[in-house]
Amino acid sequence: MSETVEHAIQDEYGKDFAWCYGCGRLNEDGLHLRTGWNGEETMTFYEPRKEHTAIPGFVYGGLLASLVDCHGTGSASLALHRKNGHEPGSGEEPPRFVTGSLHVDFLKPTPQGKTLKAVGKVEEIHPKKFKVNVEVFAGDVKVANGEVVAVLMPSTFTS
Amino acid sequence: MSETVEHAIQDEYGKDFAWCYGCGRLNEDGLHLRTGWNGEETMTFYEPRKEHTAIPGFVYGGLLASLVDCHGTGSASLALHRKNGHEPGSGEEPPRFVTGSLHVDFLKPTPQGKTLKAVGKVEEIHPKKFKVNVEVFAGDVKVANGEVVAVLMPSTFTS
Repeated sequence: MSETVEHAIQDEYGKDFAWCYGCGRLNEDGLHLRTGWNGEETMTFYEPRKEHTAIPGFVYGGLLASLVDCHGTGSASLALHRKNGHEPGSGEEPPRFVTGSLHVDFLKPTPQGKTLKAVGKVEEIHPKKFKVNVEVFAGDVKVANGEVVAVLMPSTFTS
Repeated sequence: MSETVEHAIQDEYGKDFAWCYGCGRLNEDGLHLRTGWNGEETMTFYEPRKEHTAIPGFVYGGLLASLVDCHGTGSASLALHRKNGHEPGSGEEPPRFVTGSLHVDFLKPTPQGKTLKAVGKVEEIHPKKFKVNVEVFAGDVKVANGEVVAVLMPSTFTS
């Protein structure tokens, strides 16, 4: 598996929706998570910053939760975009999702200094709601399992 | 309820365990979450930074997850510390917990510009494992429900 995402869905979010701290390309202080297809699975890579510490030497769980969160909404966006006949890179603005629920099981301590990789499987559970199962790896070691229920952004976010 | 925590458990974590991005007092770039008792409940307050954006005007879900996470481990530490006969402020070093699992249900969009308040109820489910139910409020509005299973820090984090 490649360690980069060539065409990320977040690269094409509309300008008003590209400010997310986790994955917004326009948020200068954010994490700039980028999520793309790898066959039928989705993937996001991230190198934690030095300050993303839990206990020294290990990565902060809240950072892993943020990775799972944005990987989940990005994966749902990818899936609906594909269902609508589009792939990232096509220039079509994709649908934007928000997080309904987030679950993370931390399987083992996550060492610092490794690239994190989130791998997602997306399932449509309602026309406006997608469930994304997420596995998180630090290098080759699986460190967390996650699940996100992502919901098509409701009008309450823009009114 | 007061909007400040006088004696936070994180103020007394041992120096080697006070670097957490979410709640470590020694992490200069971190969030500095502080968790204390309010009667039999626990509480943490936080004012999101400008960059903690989801969609403009609303708070990033991963930040709420981080608040729930550290509030959970801090609450477990408070509970075991009290069980051991100590309160924060006594100068005794409290036990340090890590997160086994984290769940957040996002109930409604969280407006920026409000102080967030996490309120926890702690239950011992095993001598080394505590479940913390967390309600998150933005001002007076409940915006999320969370649950953390916090586990007494295993030796794998220090070896």
